[in-house]
Amino acid sequence: METLAIIKIGGNIIDEEEKLHSFLSAFADIGGKKILVHGGGKLATKLASDLGVQQQLVDGRRITDAETLKIVTMVYAGYINKNIVAGLQALNCNAIGLCGVDGNAILAHKRRSVGAKDDRAGDPNMEPEADHEAAGGIRKDLDYGFVGDIDTINKAFLDQLLREGKALVFAPITHDGKGQLLNTNADTIAKEIAVALSGSFAVSLVYSFEKSGVLLNAEDDRSVIRRINAVYYKELRERQVVFGGMIPKLDNAFAALRGGVKKVIIGRAEELPELRAGQSGTTIVHA
Amino acid sequence: METLAIIKIGGNIIDEEEKLHSFLSAFADIGGKKILVHGGGKLATKLASDLGVQQQLVDGRRITDAETLKIVTMVYAGYINKNIVAGLQALNCNAIGLCGVDGNAILAHKRRSVGAKDDRAGDPNMEPEADHEAAGGIRKDLDYGFVGDIDTINKAFLDQLLREGKALVFAPITHDGKGQLLNTNADTIAKEIAVALSGSFAVSLVYSFEKSGVLLNAEDDRSVIRRINAVYYKELRERQVVFGGMIPKLDNAFAALRGGVKKVIIGRAEELPELRAGQSGTTIVHA
Repeated sequence: METLAIIKIGGNIIDEEEKLHSFLSAFADIGGKKILVHGGGKLATKLASDLGVQQQLVDGRRITDAETLKIVTMVYAGYINKNIVAGLQALNCNAIGLCGVDGNAILAHKRRSVGAKDDRAGDPNMEPEADHEAAGGIRKDLDYGFVGDIDTINKAFLDQLLREGKALVFAPITHDGKGQLLNTNADTIAKEIAVALSGSFAVSLVYSFEKSGVLLNAEDDRSVIRRINAVYYKELRERQVVFGGMIPKLDNAFAALRGGVKKVIIGRAEELPELRAGQSGTTIVHA
Repeated sequence: METLAIIKIGGNIIDEEEKLHSFLSAFADIGGKKILVHGGGKLATKLASDLGVQQQLVDGRRITDAETLKIVTMVYAGYINKNIVAGLQALNCNAIGLCGVDGNAILAHKRRSVGAKDDRAGDPNMEPEADHEAAGGIRKDLDYGFVGDIDTINKAFLDQLLREGKALVFAPITHDGKGQLLNTNADTIAKEIAVALSGSFAVSLVYSFEKSGVLLNAEDDRSVIRRINAVYYKELRERQVVFGGMIPKLDNAFAALRGGVKKVIIGRAEELPELRAGQSGTTIVHA
Protein backbone atom coordinates (compact mmCIF):
# COMPACT_ATOMS: atom_id res chain seq x y z
CA MET A 1 0.00 0.00 0.00
CA GLU A 2 1.30 3.41 -0.92
CA THR A 3 2.15 5.77 1.93
CA LEU A 4 0.39 9.05 2.67
CA ALA A 5 1.83 11.56 5.15
CA ILE A 6 -0.67 13.95 6.74
CA ILE A 7 0.90 16.81 8.68
CA LYS A 8 -1.06 19.27 10.78
CA ILE A 9 0.82 22.48 11.46
CA GLY A 10 -0.42 24.80 14.15
CA GLY A 11 0.73 27.39 16.60
CA ASN A 12 2.97 30.37 16.19
CA ILE A 13 5.24 28.86 13.56
CA ILE A 14 2.72 29.98 10.93
CA ASP A 15 3.42 33.60 11.87
CA GLU A 16 7.22 33.28 11.76
CA GLU A 17 8.44 33.50 8.18
CA GLU A 18 11.81 31.78 8.60
CA LYS A 19 10.52 28.91 10.72
CA LEU A 20 7.62 28.42 8.36
CA HIS A 21 9.99 28.32 5.40
CA SER A 22 12.17 25.63 6.93
CA PHE A 23 9.07 23.66 7.90
CA LEU A 24 7.83 23.87 4.31
CA SER A 25 11.24 22.64 3.07
CA ALA A 26 10.93 19.61 5.32
CA PHE A 27 7.37 19.03 4.10
CA ALA A 28 8.45 19.35 0.46
CA ASP A 29 11.17 16.75 1.09
CA ILE A 30 8.69 14.07 2.14
CA GLY A 31 8.58 11.37 -0.52
CA GLY A 32 5.25 10.04 -1.74
CA LYS A 33 1.76 11.41 -1.22
CA LYS A 34 1.26 14.17 1.33
CA ILE A 35 -1.29 16.52 2.83
CA LEU A 36 -0.72 19.60 4.98
CA VAL A 37 -3.49 20.92 7.21
CA HIS A 38 -2.86 24.33 8.71
CA GLY A 39 -4.42 26.26 11.54
CA GLY A 40 -4.65 29.97 11.91
CA GLY A 41 -1.82 31.39 13.98
CA LYS A 42 -2.29 34.75 15.61
CA LEU A 43 -3.03 36.65 12.43
CA ALA A 44 -6.82 36.28 12.63
CA THR A 45 -6.83 37.54 16.22
CA LYS A 46 -4.70 40.50 15.20
CA LEU A 47 -6.90 41.32 12.19
CA ALA A 48 -10.04 41.19 14.35
CA SER A 49 -8.41 43.53 16.82
CA ASP A 50 -7.19 45.90 14.06
CA LEU A 51 -10.72 46.01 12.66
CA GLY A 52 -12.24 46.54 16.08
CA VAL A 53 -14.32 43.37 15.73
CA GLN A 54 -15.31 42.55 19.27
CA GLN A 55 -14.50 38.97 20.21
CA GLN A 56 -17.46 37.53 22.07
CA LEU A 57 -16.23 35.23 24.78
CA VAL A 58 -18.37 32.75 26.72
CA ASP A 59 -16.62 30.78 29.47
CA GLY A 60 -13.36 31.88 27.90
CA ARG A 61 -14.35 30.52 24.48
CA ARG A 62 -14.60 32.68 21.43
CA ILE A 63 -17.85 32.71 19.45
CA THR A 64 -17.54 32.58 15.66
CA ASP A 65 -20.04 35.29 14.73
CA ALA A 66 -20.56 36.46 11.13
CA GLU A 67 -17.78 39.05 11.30
CA THR A 68 -15.33 36.58 12.83
CA LEU A 69 -16.20 33.99 10.17
CA LYS A 70 -15.43 36.57 7.49
CA ILE A 71 -12.06 37.28 9.11
CA VAL A 72 -11.04 33.63 9.47
CA THR A 73 -12.13 32.90 5.89
CA MET A 74 -9.92 35.75 4.65
CA VAL A 75 -6.94 34.82 6.83
CA TYR A 76 -7.04 31.01 6.76
CA ALA A 77 -8.35 30.25 3.24
CA GLY A 78 -6.84 33.39 1.69
CA TYR A 79 -3.65 34.78 3.14
CA ILE A 80 -2.16 31.78 4.97
CA ASN A 81 -3.27 29.08 2.53
CA LYS A 82 -2.06 30.87 -0.60
CA ASN A 83 1.24 31.92 0.95
CA ILE A 84 1.93 28.35 2.05
CA VAL A 85 1.12 27.04 -1.44
CA ALA A 86 3.32 29.72 -3.04
CA GLY A 87 6.14 28.72 -0.68
CA LEU A 88 5.77 25.05 -1.64
CA GLN A 89 5.66 25.85 -5.37
CA ALA A 90 8.95 27.72 -4.93
CA LEU A 91 10.36 24.48 -3.48
CA ASN A 92 9.17 22.55 -6.57
CA CYS A 93 6.42 20.92 -4.56
CA ASN A 94 3.29 21.06 -6.72
CA ALA A 95 0.71 21.90 -4.09
CA ILE A 96 -2.93 22.87 -4.35
CA GLY A 97 -4.66 24.94 -1.67
CA LEU A 98 -8.12 23.83 -0.65
CA CYS A 99 -10.76 24.41 1.93
CA GLY A 100 -13.81 22.25 2.53
CA VAL A 101 -15.94 23.93 -0.18
CA ASP A 102 -13.48 23.20 -2.99
CA GLY A 103 -14.62 20.15 -4.91
CA ASN A 104 -17.01 19.65 -1.97
CA ALA A 105 -14.00 18.27 -0.10
CA ILE A 106 -15.40 18.52 3.45
CA LEU A 107 -19.08 18.69 4.24
CA ALA A 108 -20.02 19.77 7.76
CA HIS A 109 -22.98 21.05 9.75
CA LYS A 110 -23.22 24.03 12.03
CA ARG A 111 -22.64 22.81 15.57
CA ARG A 112 -25.92 22.32 17.32
CA SER A 113 -26.32 24.20 20.54
CA VAL A 114 -27.89 21.26 22.35
CA GLY A 115 -26.18 17.87 22.43
CA ALA A 116 -22.95 18.96 20.80
CA LYS A 117 -20.57 16.03 20.79
CA ASP A 118 -17.28 17.70 19.99
CA ASP A 119 -14.98 18.55 22.84
CA ARG A 120 -13.98 21.86 21.25
CA ALA A 121 -16.22 24.87 20.96
CA GLY A 122 -16.13 28.53 20.13
CA ASP A 123 -13.62 29.46 17.50
CA PRO A 124 -11.87 26.16 16.92
CA ASN A 125 -8.66 27.58 15.49
CA MET A 126 -7.77 30.80 17.22
CA GLU A 127 -5.36 30.22 20.10
CA PRO A 128 -6.95 26.92 21.03
CA GLU A 129 -4.73 26.14 23.99
CA ALA A 130 -5.56 29.40 25.70
CA ASP A 131 -9.24 29.03 24.97
CA HIS A 132 -9.35 25.55 26.27
CA GLU A 133 -7.55 26.20 29.51
CA ALA A 134 -9.83 29.07 30.31
CA ALA A 135 -12.92 26.93 30.05
CA GLY A 136 -14.28 24.15 32.21
CA GLY A 137 -16.15 22.50 29.34
CA ILE A 138 -18.51 23.39 26.59
CA ARG A 139 -21.99 24.58 27.34
CA LYS A 140 -24.33 22.46 25.31
CA ASP A 141 -27.15 24.99 25.56
CA LEU A 142 -25.10 27.67 23.83
CA ASP A 143 -24.84 28.68 20.18
CA TYR A 144 -21.13 28.92 19.40
CA GLY A 145 -21.81 30.48 16.01
CA PHE A 146 -20.48 29.43 12.63
CA VAL A 147 -18.50 26.43 13.82
CA GLY A 148 -18.72 23.26 11.76
CA ASP A 149 -18.63 19.62 12.82
CA ILE A 150 -17.57 17.35 9.97
CA ASP A 151 -20.02 14.97 8.27
CA THR A 152 -18.18 13.71 5.18
CA ILE A 153 -14.75 13.78 3.57
CA ASN A 154 -14.90 13.55 -0.23
CA LYS A 155 -12.49 10.63 -0.44
CA ALA A 156 -12.72 10.16 -4.23
CA PHE A 157 -11.80 13.79 -4.87
CA LEU A 158 -8.79 13.83 -2.54
CA ASP A 159 -7.68 10.46 -3.82
CA GLN A 160 -7.80 11.72 -7.42
CA LEU A 161 -5.72 14.84 -6.67
CA LEU A 162 -3.15 12.81 -4.74
CA ARG A 163 -2.83 10.29 -7.57
CA GLU A 164 -2.23 13.19 -9.97
CA GLY A 165 0.82 14.02 -7.85
CA LYS A 166 -0.49 17.06 -6.00
CA ALA A 167 0.37 17.88 -2.40
CA LEU A 168 -2.84 19.10 -0.75
CA VAL A 169 -2.86 22.09 1.60
CA PHE A 170 -6.05 22.46 3.66
CA ALA A 171 -7.34 25.59 5.38
CA PRO A 172 -9.71 24.88 8.30
CA ILE A 173 -12.88 26.19 6.65
CA THR A 174 -15.71 23.83 5.67
CA HIS A 175 -19.28 24.30 4.42
CA ASP A 176 -22.76 22.92 5.01
CA GLY A 177 -23.66 22.32 1.35
CA LYS A 178 -26.27 25.09 1.56
CA GLY A 179 -23.90 27.97 0.95
CA GLN A 180 -22.75 28.53 4.52
CA LEU A 181 -19.02 28.50 5.29
CA LEU A 182 -18.04 27.11 8.70
CA ASN A 183 -14.98 27.45 10.90
CA THR A 184 -13.72 23.96 11.74
CA ASN A 185 -11.00 22.69 14.03
CA ALA A 186 -7.86 21.91 12.01
CA ASP A 187 -6.81 18.96 14.25
CA THR A 188 -10.17 17.34 13.59
CA ILE A 189 -9.92 17.98 9.84
CA ALA A 190 -6.50 16.26 9.82
CA LYS A 191 -7.91 13.27 11.72
CA GLU A 192 -11.03 12.93 9.55
CA ILE A 193 -9.00 13.11 6.32
CA ALA A 194 -6.50 10.58 7.73
CA VAL A 195 -9.24 8.12 8.64
CA ALA A 196 -11.12 8.60 5.35
CA LEU A 197 -8.00 7.87 3.28
CA SER A 198 -6.69 5.01 5.44
CA GLY A 199 -8.56 2.55 3.20
CA SER A 200 -6.53 3.63 0.17
CA PHE A 201 -3.13 4.47 1.70
CA ALA A 202 -0.87 3.54 4.61
CA VAL A 203 -1.44 6.82 6.46
CA SER A 204 0.86 8.45 9.01
CA LEU A 205 -0.42 11.51 10.87
CA VAL A 206 1.77 14.13 12.56
CA TYR A 207 0.37 16.82 14.82
CA SER A 208 3.09 19.47 14.86
CA PHE A 209 3.10 22.62 16.97
CA GLU A 210 5.44 24.65 19.19
CA LYS A 211 5.93 22.00 21.90
CA SER A 212 8.25 19.00 21.80
CA GLY A 213 5.39 16.56 22.30
CA VAL A 214 3.12 15.53 25.15
CA LEU A 215 4.95 16.69 28.27
CA LEU A 216 5.04 15.16 31.75
CA ASN A 217 5.68 18.65 33.06
CA ALA A 218 4.06 21.39 30.98
CA GLU A 219 6.82 23.79 32.04
CA ASP A 220 9.67 21.52 30.96
CA ASP A 221 10.01 21.03 27.22
CA ARG A 222 12.49 18.17 27.80
CA SER A 223 9.93 16.06 29.67
CA VAL A 224 8.50 14.53 26.50
CA ILE A 225 6.55 11.32 26.96
CA ARG A 226 7.85 9.07 24.16
CA ARG A 227 4.88 6.69 23.88
CA ILE A 228 1.30 6.87 25.06
CA ASN A 229 -1.26 4.09 24.81
CA ALA A 230 -4.94 4.34 25.73
CA VAL A 231 -4.46 3.06 29.29
CA TYR A 232 -1.63 5.48 29.99
CA TYR A 233 -3.62 8.33 28.42
CA LYS A 234 -6.49 7.65 30.82
CA GLU A 235 -4.06 7.79 33.72
CA LEU A 236 -2.43 11.02 32.44
CA ARG A 237 -5.85 12.66 32.20
CA GLU A 238 -6.82 11.55 35.69
CA ARG A 239 -3.56 12.90 37.11
CA GLN A 240 -4.17 16.11 35.10
CA VAL A 241 -0.75 15.80 33.52
CA VAL A 242 -2.63 16.17 30.26
CA PHE A 243 -5.06 19.07 30.18
CA GLY A 244 -6.35 21.97 28.09
CA GLY A 245 -5.91 21.90 24.34
CA MET A 246 -3.86 18.69 24.56
CA ILE A 247 -6.99 16.67 25.40
CA PRO A 248 -8.87 17.17 22.12
CA LYS A 249 -5.55 16.72 20.26
CA LEU A 250 -4.96 13.36 21.93
CA ASP A 251 -8.60 12.38 21.50
CA ASN A 252 -8.17 13.04 17.79
CA ALA A 253 -4.90 11.08 17.80
CA PHE A 254 -6.47 7.98 19.36
CA ALA A 255 -9.55 8.27 17.12
CA ALA A 256 -7.21 8.31 14.11
CA LEU A 257 -5.49 5.11 15.27
CA ARG A 258 -8.82 3.40 15.89
CA GLY A 259 -9.93 4.55 12.42
CA GLY A 260 -7.10 2.71 10.67
CA VAL A 261 -4.28 5.28 10.62
CA LYS A 262 -0.96 3.43 10.92
CA LYS A 263 1.07 5.93 12.94
CA VAL A 264 0.28 9.07 14.94
CA ILE A 265 3.00 11.39 16.29
CA ILE A 266 2.79 14.66 18.20
CA GLY A 267 5.73 17.07 18.40
CA ARG A 268 7.63 20.16 17.42
CA ALA A 269 7.13 21.56 13.92
CA GLU A 270 10.85 22.37 13.63
CA GLU A 271 11.61 18.65 14.01
CA LEU A 272 9.40 17.26 11.26
CA PRO A 273 11.99 14.81 9.82
CA GLU A 274 12.87 13.52 13.33
CA LEU A 275 9.18 13.15 14.22
CA ARG A 276 8.55 11.14 11.10
CA ALA A 277 11.60 8.97 11.81
CA GLY A 278 10.35 8.29 15.36
CA GLN A 279 13.40 10.05 16.86
CA SER A 280 11.48 12.74 18.68
CA GLY A 281 8.01 13.68 19.84
CA THR A 282 5.31 11.51 21.32
CA THR A 283 4.09 8.43 19.47
CA ILE A 284 0.51 7.35 20.05
CA VAL A 285 0.10 3.59 20.19
CA HIS A 286 -2.83 1.21 20.53
CA ALA A 287 -1.62 -0.74 23.53
CA MET B 1 -15.10 19.77 -30.02
CA GLU B 2 -16.53 20.07 -26.55
CA THR B 3 -17.64 23.55 -25.46
CA LEU B 4 -16.09 25.54 -22.63
CA ALA B 5 -17.75 28.68 -21.25
CA ILE B 6 -15.46 31.18 -19.54
CA ILE B 7 -17.25 33.94 -17.66
CA LYS B 8 -15.51 36.91 -16.09
CA ILE B 9 -17.59 38.62 -13.43
CA GLY B 10 -16.58 42.03 -12.20
CA GLY B 11 -17.95 45.18 -10.77
CA ASN B 12 -20.35 45.79 -7.94
CA ILE B 13 -22.43 42.66 -8.43
CA ILE B 14 -19.89 40.78 -6.33
CA ASP B 15 -20.82 42.96 -3.36
CA GLU B 16 -24.57 42.51 -3.75
CA GLU B 17 -25.68 39.21 -2.27
CA GLU B 18 -28.98 38.79 -4.15
CA LYS B 19 -27.62 39.76 -7.54
CA LEU B 20 -24.59 37.55 -7.02
CA HIS B 21 -26.84 34.62 -6.11
CA SER B 22 -28.92 34.93 -9.26
CA PHE B 23 -25.75 35.28 -11.33
CA LEU B 24 -24.40 32.09 -9.76
CA SER B 25 -27.68 30.31 -10.56
CA ALA B 26 -27.29 31.30 -14.20
CA PHE B 27 -23.66 30.15 -14.16
CA ALA B 28 -24.61 26.82 -12.54
CA ASP B 29 -27.21 26.29 -15.29
CA ILE B 30 -24.62 26.43 -18.08
CA GLY B 31 -24.27 22.95 -19.58
CA GLY B 32 -20.81 21.53 -20.25
CA LYS B 33 -17.43 22.72 -19.04
CA LYS B 34 -17.18 26.13 -17.41
CA ILE B 35 -14.82 28.53 -15.67
CA LEU B 36 -15.66 31.63 -13.64
CA VAL B 37 -13.05 34.35 -13.14
CA HIS B 38 -13.93 36.96 -10.55
CA GLY B 39 -12.58 40.38 -9.75
CA GLY B 40 -12.57 42.10 -6.44
CA GLY B 41 -15.54 44.39 -6.00
CA LYS B 42 -15.34 47.16 -3.47
CA LEU B 43 -14.57 44.94 -0.50
CA ALA B 44 -10.79 45.21 -0.76
CA THR B 45 -10.97 49.00 -0.93
CA LYS B 46 -13.24 49.02 2.12
CA LEU B 47 -10.98 46.66 4.08
CA ALA B 48 -7.92 48.79 3.28
CA SER B 49 -9.77 51.86 4.48
CA ASP B 50 -11.03 50.10 7.65
CA LEU B 51 -7.45 49.03 8.41
CA GLY B 52 -6.08 52.48 7.69
CA VAL B 53 -3.81 51.10 4.97
CA GLN B 54 -2.90 54.14 2.93
CA GLN B 55 -3.53 53.64 -0.76
CA GLN B 56 -0.56 55.01 -2.65
CA LEU B 57 -1.76 56.65 -5.84
CA VAL B 58 0.45 57.65 -8.74
CA ASP B 59 -1.26 59.41 -11.66
CA GLY B 60 -4.54 58.17 -10.21
CA ARG B 61 -3.37 54.55 -10.17
CA ARG B 62 -3.13 52.50 -7.04
CA ILE B 63 0.19 50.84 -6.17
CA THR B 64 0.00 47.25 -4.91
CA ASP B 65 2.37 47.55 -1.96
CA ALA B 66 2.96 44.65 0.46
CA GLU B 67 0.03 45.59 2.71
CA THR B 68 -2.33 45.97 -0.24
CA LEU B 69 -1.22 42.60 -1.62
CA LYS B 70 -2.04 41.02 1.74
CA ILE B 71 -5.50 42.60 1.67
CA VAL B 72 -6.32 41.54 -1.90
CA THR B 73 -5.06 38.00 -1.21
CA MET B 74 -7.37 37.77 1.80
CA VAL B 75 -10.37 39.29 0.04
CA TYR B 76 -10.05 37.82 -3.48
CA ALA B 77 -8.56 34.36 -2.82
CA GLY B 78 -10.20 33.98 0.60
CA TYR B 79 -13.51 35.67 1.23
CA ILE B 80 -14.89 36.18 -2.27
CA ASN B 81 -13.54 32.99 -3.84
CA LYS B 82 -14.74 30.67 -1.07
CA ASN B 83 -18.16 32.31 -0.80
CA ILE B 84 -18.68 31.97 -4.55
CA VAL B 85 -17.67 28.31 -4.43
CA ALA B 86 -19.95 27.67 -1.43
CA GLY B 87 -22.80 29.34 -3.35
CA LEU B 88 -22.18 27.13 -6.38
CA GLN B 89 -21.98 23.95 -4.26
CA ALA B 90 -25.38 24.87 -2.80
CA LEU B 91 -26.67 24.93 -6.41
CA ASN B 92 -25.26 21.44 -7.02
CA CYS B 93 -22.49 22.85 -9.16
CA ASN B 94 -19.29 21.08 -8.12
CA ALA B 95 -16.87 23.98 -8.20
CA ILE B 96 -13.27 24.30 -7.07
CA GLY B 97 -11.77 27.64 -6.07
CA LEU B 98 -8.29 28.37 -7.35
CA CYS B 99 -5.78 31.12 -7.67
CA GLY B 100 -2.64 31.06 -9.77
CA VAL B 101 -0.53 29.28 -7.14
CA ASP B 102 -2.81 26.27 -6.87
CA GLY B 103 -1.43 23.43 -8.94
CA ASN B 104 0.87 26.09 -10.41
CA ALA B 105 -2.13 27.16 -12.51
CA ILE B 106 -0.89 30.62 -13.52
CA LEU B 107 2.75 31.63 -13.52
CA ALA B 108 3.49 35.35 -13.78
CA HIS B 109 6.30 37.83 -13.23
CA LYS B 110 6.29 41.06 -11.29
CA ARG B 111 5.64 43.86 -13.77
CA ARG B 112 8.89 45.49 -14.74
CA SER B 113 9.08 49.18 -14.16
CA VAL B 114 10.72 49.86 -17.50
CA GLY B 115 9.19 48.62 -20.72
CA ALA B 116 5.96 47.31 -19.23
CA LYS B 117 3.78 46.07 -22.04
CA ASP B 118 0.43 45.77 -20.34
CA ASP B 119 -2.00 48.60 -20.71
CA ARG B 120 -3.11 48.31 -17.09
CA ALA B 121 -1.06 49.26 -14.10
CA GLY B 122 -1.33 49.82 -10.40
CA ASP B 123 -3.80 47.58 -8.63
CA PRO B 124 -5.31 45.73 -11.56
CA ASN B 125 -8.55 44.75 -9.83
CA MET B 126 -9.68 47.51 -7.51
CA GLU B 127 -12.18 49.79 -9.23
CA PRO B 128 -10.39 49.53 -12.55
CA GLU B 129 -12.71 51.85 -14.45
CA ALA B 130 -12.12 54.67 -12.02
CA ASP B 131 -8.38 54.05 -11.92
CA HIS B 132 -8.10 53.99 -15.63
CA GLU B 133 -10.07 57.11 -16.33
CA ALA B 134 -8.02 59.06 -13.85
CA ALA B 135 -4.79 58.23 -15.60
CA GLY B 136 -3.39 59.34 -18.92
CA GLY B 137 -1.29 56.23 -19.34
CA ILE B 138 1.13 54.11 -17.38
CA ARG B 139 4.51 55.43 -16.44
CA LYS B 140 7.03 52.89 -17.57
CA ASP B 141 9.67 54.19 -15.21
CA LEU B 142 7.55 53.44 -12.16
CA ASP B 143 7.36 50.39 -9.90
CA TYR B 144 3.67 49.59 -9.54
CA GLY B 145 4.37 47.05 -6.83
CA PHE B 146 3.23 43.44 -6.61
CA VAL B 147 1.38 43.34 -9.91
CA GLY B 148 1.84 40.26 -12.07
CA ASP B 149 1.91 39.90 -15.84
CA ILE B 150 1.09 36.37 -16.94
CA ASP B 151 3.74 34.06 -18.43
CA THR B 152 2.08 30.63 -18.52
CA ILE B 153 -1.27 28.96 -18.00
CA ASN B 154 -0.97 25.36 -16.80
CA LYS B 155 -3.20 23.96 -19.51
CA ALA B 156 -2.81 20.30 -18.54
CA PHE B 157 -3.89 20.97 -14.96
CA LEU B 158 -7.00 22.97 -15.91
CA ASP B 159 -7.87 20.47 -18.60
CA GLN B 160 -7.68 17.62 -16.09
CA LEU B 161 -9.96 19.34 -13.55
CA LEU B 162 -12.48 20.25 -16.24
CA ARG B 163 -12.56 16.68 -17.55
CA GLU B 164 -13.22 15.48 -13.99
CA GLY B 165 -16.40 17.58 -14.14
CA LYS B 166 -15.33 20.48 -11.95
CA ALA B 167 -16.35 24.07 -12.55
CA LEU B 168 -13.29 26.24 -11.90
CA VAL B 169 -13.53 29.53 -10.00
CA PHE B 170 -10.45 31.76 -10.29
CA ALA B 171 -9.40 34.57 -7.98
CA PRO B 172 -7.10 37.15 -9.63
CA ILE B 173 -3.95 36.28 -7.70
CA THR B 174 -0.96 34.66 -9.41
CA HIS B 175 2.63 33.88 -8.38
CA ASP B 176 6.14 34.10 -9.74
CA GLY B 177 7.23 30.55 -8.90
CA LYS B 178 9.67 31.90 -6.32
CA GLY B 179 7.16 32.26 -3.50
CA GLN B 180 5.83 35.71 -4.36
CA LEU B 181 2.10 36.21 -4.80
CA LEU B 182 1.07 38.81 -7.39
CA ASN B 183 -2.10 40.80 -8.01
CA THR B 184 -3.18 40.22 -11.61
CA ASN B 185 -5.91 41.74 -13.74
CA ALA B 186 -8.93 39.41 -13.84
CA ASP B 187 -9.89 40.33 -17.43
CA THR B 188 -6.42 39.32 -18.57
CA ILE B 189 -6.58 36.05 -16.61
CA ALA B 190 -9.89 35.21 -18.32
CA LYS B 191 -8.38 35.96 -21.73
CA GLU B 192 -5.18 33.99 -21.12
CA ILE B 193 -7.08 30.94 -19.85
CA ALA B 194 -9.48 31.18 -22.81
CA VAL B 195 -6.64 31.27 -25.33
CA ALA B 196 -4.68 28.50 -23.60
CA LEU B 197 -7.68 26.14 -23.63
CA SER B 198 -8.89 27.02 -27.12
CA GLY B 199 -6.81 24.15 -28.51
CA SER B 200 -8.78 21.62 -26.45
CA PHE B 201 -12.26 23.16 -26.37
CA ALA B 202 -14.58 25.39 -28.41
CA VAL B 203 -14.28 28.34 -26.01
CA SER B 204 -16.75 31.18 -25.53
CA LEU B 205 -15.72 34.10 -23.33
CA VAL B 206 -18.11 36.50 -21.62
CA TYR B 207 -16.95 39.68 -19.89
CA SER B 208 -19.82 40.54 -17.56
CA PHE B 209 -20.09 43.65 -15.42
CA GLU B 210 -22.62 46.33 -14.45
CA LYS B 211 -23.06 47.85 -17.91
CA SER B 212 -25.20 46.52 -20.77
CA GLY B 213 -22.24 46.23 -23.10
CA VAL B 214 -20.00 48.62 -25.01
CA LEU B 215 -22.01 51.84 -25.18
CA LEU B 216 -22.15 54.51 -27.89
CA ASN B 217 -23.01 56.97 -25.15
CA ALA B 218 -21.48 56.14 -21.79
CA GLU B 219 -24.40 57.86 -20.04
CA ASP B 220 -27.07 55.84 -21.86
CA ASP B 221 -27.26 52.18 -20.95
CA ARG B 222 -29.60 51.53 -23.91
CA SER B 223 -27.00 52.63 -26.47
CA VAL B 224 -25.38 49.20 -26.67
CA ILE B 225 -23.26 48.55 -29.75
CA ARG B 226 -24.32 45.06 -30.82
CA ARG B 227 -21.23 44.09 -32.82
CA ILE B 228 -17.71 45.45 -32.96
CA ASN B 229 -15.00 44.34 -35.35
CA ALA B 230 -11.37 45.47 -35.33
CA VAL B 231 -11.90 48.29 -37.84
CA TYR B 232 -14.91 49.68 -35.98
CA TYR B 233 -13.00 49.39 -32.67
CA LYS B 234 -10.19 51.52 -34.07
CA GLU B 235 -12.73 54.12 -35.10
CA LEU B 236 -14.49 54.03 -31.70
CA ARG B 237 -11.16 54.62 -29.97
CA GLU B 238 -10.26 57.48 -32.25
CA ARG B 239 -13.65 59.12 -31.64
CA GLN B 240 -13.11 58.48 -27.91
CA VAL B 241 -16.46 56.70 -27.73
CA VAL B 242 -14.50 53.90 -26.10
CA PHE B 243 -12.23 55.05 -23.29
CA GLY B 244 -11.03 54.27 -19.77
CA GLY B 245 -11.35 50.71 -18.46
CA MET B 246 -13.20 49.63 -21.60
CA ILE B 247 -10.00 49.84 -23.67
CA PRO B 248 -8.03 47.07 -21.92
CA LYS B 249 -11.24 45.01 -21.76
CA LEU B 250 -11.71 45.30 -25.54
CA ASP B 251 -8.00 44.74 -26.15
CA ASN B 252 -8.34 41.50 -24.19
CA ALA B 253 -11.49 40.61 -26.13
CA PHE B 254 -9.79 41.02 -29.52
CA ALA B 255 -6.66 39.22 -28.31
CA ALA B 256 -8.88 36.31 -27.25
CA LEU B 257 -10.47 36.11 -30.72
CA ARG B 258 -7.07 36.25 -32.41
CA GLY B 259 -5.91 33.50 -30.01
CA GLY B 260 -8.55 31.04 -31.17
CA VAL B 261 -11.51 31.78 -28.87
CA LYS B 262 -14.74 31.20 -30.81
CA LYS B 263 -16.95 33.88 -29.33
CA VAL B 264 -16.43 36.93 -27.12
CA ILE B 265 -19.32 38.90 -25.59
CA ILE B 266 -19.37 41.88 -23.24
CA GLY B 267 -22.44 42.77 -21.19
CA ARG B 268 -24.49 42.92 -18.03
CA ALA B 269 -23.93 40.20 -15.43
CA GLU B 270 -27.68 40.02 -14.70
CA GLU B 271 -28.24 38.95 -18.32
CA LEU B 272 -25.84 36.03 -18.52
CA PRO B 273 -28.24 33.65 -20.36
CA GLU B 274 -29.17 36.39 -22.88
CA LEU B 275 -25.51 37.28 -23.41
CA ARG B 276 -24.65 33.66 -24.09
CA ALA B 277 -27.59 33.37 -26.49
CA GLY B 278 -26.45 36.47 -28.38
CA GLN B 279 -29.64 38.35 -27.43
CA SER B 280 -27.96 41.14 -25.53
CA GLY B 281 -24.59 42.75 -24.96
CA THR B 282 -21.82 43.47 -27.42
CA THR B 283 -20.37 40.68 -29.55
CA ILE B 284 -16.76 41.03 -30.62
CA VAL B 285 -16.14 39.78 -34.15
CA HIS B 286 -13.10 39.40 -36.38
CA ALA B 287 -14.31 41.41 -39.33
